[in-house]
Amino acid sequence: MNTKRLYELSEIADLILQDKDSNSNLKDIIVELKEIVSSFKQGSLGLAQLNPIVGDIEYNSKKIMKYIAYATALDLDMVVFPELAIMGYPIEDTIDRHPIIVEENLKWLKEIAKLTTTTAAVVGFVEPRRGKYNTGKKYYNSLAVMYDGKIQHIIRKSLLPNYSEFNDYRYIEPSPVIGSQPSETLALFDEENIKDCPKTNVIGGLKYGFSICEDCWNNRAFFSSNMYNIDPIDVLSKEKPNVFVNCSASPSRAKKEQLKHNMLAFISENYKTPMVYVNQVGAVDNSSFDGSSRVFDRDGKLLARAKSFEEQFLIVNPLQAVGKVYPLTKGLEKSLTEEKVFTLDYENDLERTYKTITQGIRDYFSKNGLKRACLGLSGGLDSTVCAVLLADALGKENVFGVSMPSKITSKESRSDAEQLAENLGINFAEMPIKDMVDTTNRMFNNLFEQVESKWDCRYKKSFTQDNIQARSRAMYLWGIANEFASCVPIATSDKSELYMGYATINGDMSGGFAPIADVPKTKLFAFARWLNKNREVKNAIPEAIILKRPGAELAIDERTGKPLIAEDALMPYEFLDEVIWRIENKHEYYQDMIDSKFLYEKNNEVTKEQKTEWLDKFYRRMSTSLYKWSILPPSVIVESRSINKYDYKQPITSSHINYKGTEVDDIKKILITCIKL
Amino acid sequence: MNTKRLYELSEIADLILQDKDSNSNLKDIIVELKEIVSSFKQGSLGLAQLNPIVGDIEYNSKKIMKYIAYATALDLDMVVFPELAIMGYPIEDTIDRHPIIVEENLKWLKEIAKLTTTTAAVVGFVEPRRGKYNTGKKYYNSLAVMYDGKIQHIIRKSLLPNYSEFNDYRYIEPSPVIGSQPSETLALFDEENIKDCPKTNVIGGLKYGFSICEDCWNNRAFFSSNMYNIDPIDVLSKEKPNVFVNCSASPSRAKKEQLKHNMLAFISENYKTPMVYVNQVGAVDNSSFDGSSRVFDRDGKLLARAKSFEEQFLIVNPLQAVGKVYPLTKGLEKSLTEEKVFTLDYENDLERTYKTITQGIRDYFSKNGLKRACLGLSGGLDSTVCAVLLADALGKENVFGVSMPSKITSKESRSDAEQLAENLGINFAEMPIKDMVDTTNRMFNNLFEQVESKWDCRYKKSFTQDNIQARSRAMYLWGIANEFASCVPIATSDKSELYMGYATINGDMSGGFAPIADVPKTKLFAFARWLNKNREVKNAIPEAIILKRPGAELAIDERTGKPLIAEDALMPYEFLDEVIWRIENKHEYYQDMIDSKFLYEKNNEVTKEQKTEWLDKFYRRMSTSLYKWSILPPSVIVESRSINKYDYKQPITSSHINYKGTEVDDIKKILITCIKL
Repeated sequence: MNTKRLYELSEIADLILQDKDSNSNLKDIIVELKEIVSSFKQGSLGLAQLNPIVGDIEYNSKKIMKYIAYATALDLDMVVFPELAIMGYPIEDTIDRHPIIVEENLKWLKEIAKLTTTTAAVVGFVEPRRGKYNTGKKYYNSLAVMYDGKIQHIIRKSLLPNYSEFNDYRYIEPSPVIGSQPSETLALFDEENIKDCPKTNVIGGLKYGFSICEDCWNNRAFFSSNMYNIDPIDVLSKEKPNVFVNCSASPSRAKKEQLKHNMLAFISENYKTPMVYVNQVGAVDNSSFDGSSRVFDRDGKLLARAKSFEEQFLIVNPLQAVGKVYPLTKGLEKSLTEEKVFTLDYENDLERTYKTITQGIRDYFSKNGLKRACLGLSGGLDSTVCAVLLADALGKENVFGVSMPSKITSKESRSDAEQLAENLGINFAEMPIKDMVDTTNRMFNNLFEQVESKWDCRYKKSFTQDNIQARSRAMYLWGIANEFASCVPIATSDKSELYMGYATINGDMSGGFAPIADVPKTKLFAFARWLNKNREVKNAIPEAIILKRPGAELAIDERTGKPLIAEDALMPYEFLDEVIWRIENKHEYYQDMIDSKFLYEKNNEVTKEQKTEWLDKFYRRMSTSLYKWSILPPSVIVESRSINKYDYKQPITSSHINYKGTEVDDIKKILITCIKL
Repeated sequence: MNTKRLYELSEIADLILQDKDSNSNLKDIIVELKEIVSSFKQGSLGLAQLNPIVGDIEYNSKKIMKYIAYATALDLDMVVFPELAIMGYPIEDTIDRHPIIVEENLKWLKEIAKLTTTTAAVVGFVEPRRGKYNTGKKYYNSLAVMYDGKIQHIIRKSLLPNYSEFNDYRYIEPSPVIGSQPSETLALFDEENIKDCPKTNVIGGLKYGFSICEDCWNNRAFFSSNMYNIDPIDVLSKEKPNVFVNCSASPSRAKKEQLKHNMLAFISENYKTPMVYVNQVGAVDNSSFDGSSRVFDRDGKLLARAKSFEEQFLIVNPLQAVGKVYPLTKGLEKSLTEEKVFTLDYENDLERTYKTITQGIRDYFSKNGLKRACLGLSGGLDSTVCAVLLADALGKENVFGVSMPSKITSKESRSDAEQLAENLGINFAEMPIKDMVDTTNRMFNNLFEQVESKWDCRYKKSFTQDNIQARSRAMYLWGIANEFASCVPIATSDKSELYMGYATINGDMSGGFAPIADVPKTKLFAFARWLNKNREVKNAIPEAIILKRPGAELAIDERTGKPLIAEDALMPYEFLDEVIWRIENKHEYYQDMIDSKFLYEKNNEVTKEQKTEWLDKFYRRMSTSLYKWSILPPSVIVESRSINKYDYKQPITSSHINYKGTEVDDIKKILITCIKL
């Protein structure tokens, strides 16, 4: 079997189909590919790892149709698309408010079906429930199996995730039955008309068991705890299919990929059935989908894996051991069983972080008709990393870095910023903010006097001066965005500082996109070094930027007479990031952390008073930062847990939570006083 | 039965218990109340309509304990609290990330139980699932029935709302059984250890059927369509309880209250069983709960109803016809069966709108340690209505109105703003923005030249000038908030303009709270007149403000040489608000609206071209406003549907949705081109 040639050719075909290669001739390639495929006998499949645009049904349908035509030309048995391929995932409440788009996705689906011939196509869509049923939600998340000019079977999603960034259960009705139902149930299906038919489908002489995303995430032997009561894969397995096929839209998050790998391998081996998994690629707002579609053989061995973070049409034959394992983006391979330990060794996760974020930026811009970004270059780590990621995601010519020094800004910061821009090849301008700050201050003096004459609550020490600077800078950036077409200002806040509310509203946390809002500061240091080492242009980030201790350069530290260092205002980043990590990953609370030894404590003497002070500060600042989290621009979710508002919901009005807890004796004493009327 | 005296006394007791009356003697009142209550025989209950603080377990527990002590002193059979009373509703993902607070609510609950004696207390709490069960979510939403110093029974919520502002299903496991389970199941309950015991509970010789909020919202005869497959009330009815008791946390939304009224009346009458409904009062971020707890007798007749939007302890006896029907806030009485018709007659809903928003403001501030608000007073309708609401919610001395005229601002706008402030008695200052705008412009010229030398995409006509003004004003307001303690700037955008994206990022849509973000413009006109008529100080809003046609006064209309009128830039508000209403309430789409006759069209000639232009503009502007919705500050949800991000979720990256749909013939043509490879 000439699989080497198969993948050489299909890579060229991919480029042609993605309009990235106009020199090669697709027809010739198809002829040769078809011949190779014909040697595999039955079971040859195309995994169409697409990047759809949510709600752009015409765009998605055209892409689907093109890949069906291609798969048909190759005489494959079947081409499989990701979950909700016609609609794009996640469409969310949009379909409840604008039901027209569900009707549209159905119209396009039916017309696509008419154009299918011998090769089966498995296409995800939103299915309305238009019968006389009066219980539950209005839609199913479904797959259509189509060939010979019509829809032949429908498969509906049973397990609906409703945690983290997932909201399926808000607008989708869980299917009351596992597996396939006949096509006449289209848009008319419900609990009361379940047809007695095989749950699996025979295509090209082989039996396939189809499922949708979460449906395959509930194996009782694999997981120590389960979210749902039924396991669709186990139900399908009773009919002994030759192959499982799962259509997914599963975003990349830290440590999730190996879990996925292990689980899929486990299922294949456990049921002695190959598993074909087709994942969406591309980003939608805060979620970045990594693709990495794959096939495991009946022994749980990885037979094929598509590229990560790229569209690809991968030809495989799970029964004939035809496949190619493209390298996984580094960072997708941490072990599930690995003990959860906080580490500052981020090396393994940096390539994934890079691709997750750059795809997130690129797709947010391109799918919304945006093209350019402007950002402040302070010479600090946050804006530096953002600039690199933007240059790589959008093209250096589409990025404008503006150095906006104030009187506090050091000469080094200014030259570091300029050097960075030069190294990256992005556009650069320097615009002092002095005049704006001076004018604002003059006006403020007048205004504040008037306010003070009525309100006796003026702070002795305020952050007004700090914020004027940050807001003047944002004024510049939004000005550029207003004056130049398709341009978006960038919010450069990082995760550690957002936790502490160490970001200015309408200042550095304002923008149209926040690339590193889910990257903690200690990881950013490692990330900067990684970028210097792994990008085509090496060492674009001046060493001085990585070496300097971060500070916003908005205020002078009275004790040193120099710009305030963030760690002095907050706490050591190494300590802060471990607190965040312990809360997010281990659900630890105040006392747990007092009782644990932190990484930072291994190399530094920390008194109990100091630790207590830091932890008190952490909870106090976190509680008053909830508002800031709620108005953060879209940002790519990167870590296993985040504070992204689409992922984590905490009422702003919860600022009085006592994270320390209360002793039972104290509770008793307090309550006793309440019964005395 | 001396019920008149009963309610006279209990109103005074309420004031004492709420620390609003320190002259009266609670002990004397209790003696007299107890005597009256003793004449009712069995079945006397206290409805403790509390305003909890989410997550402030100590605060909530103390309040609960005080009301239990009061109820016990009166020798009532039982005191009933709202859903999740110890924790406050909604606590959301907070309990997943910080499980300590669930442990805390359990600790406090157990100590409260120990202090109960003869009077039963029904208290809502978050119950952990700590057994060896490994399926589902980690918590139940539960009620504890406590007396004689211990928890006697547990009731768990079965139906978990997961739409609009509700996210229960994200973090709560639905109870696998309806009704009561014994107390030994506390924190150890699951499907596999359901105890065979009565689902109802006998207290003081009467049988009660307890349920939690959504549990009573699934009657099959009442609703034309149902969300769930089971009806807990129907299940409880089989044991023929003497009384149903439902503990709720149900926020106020347009047209929801009459639905609630009709449904509860229907249930009581249908099962010939009185229904006691205890609702939370107070606001949390975007949700404003109205209270209005009530009792229906066995014939579905309203026997008692607590005040709306106020804490109250209401003594009732559903079997002895003891109750008082306090007046419902006007606007809570629209009929469920009323045909859905768009109307500009908002009169009926304005009192509810007023109380919903003022409570929303008051609680957001007080529960988060905030006290003061500053806002720009433009002399326009939006900022005017906001100023009135803030003055009423926070006290006039805590509101600072700043008139910030630019060269476009008319003399009338300035004097209207000042007059308004004087009429309201709020603090006032005038601060021209000229210097800031001039300085910014000077800097912008320099900056834009530099950018233009690299980017050839400068707009011929931009909104830069408009936005400088709005952002300079926000700069002032955030400056005040930085310089003066506990002060929050206010975002004054209204719903109609937010739909159109007619609001400046970091400008008028920036702030710590957005009071009228869910009030459409045409309603605001009616609201202003209502405020002038119904507030203690009449006619605080100058007539000129209500009469003038709204415009942001940010730009000059080239055609008229006068400040641009918003309706000329957008479309008539009457038309715009009807589009919004049709989409939100009737799920209409483009063609539906082309085919319908709008209210506006009754009095105005509108050509098809004009209507098409407006609708095209609506969808185009709405699609690009999604980002603005995502960064809107907290705002009270008022209408039956909103664009509040906690209520409505649409990906920002859905800007290519074709809301018009495509003809099948066109679909065919498009797809045919895709199969030619």
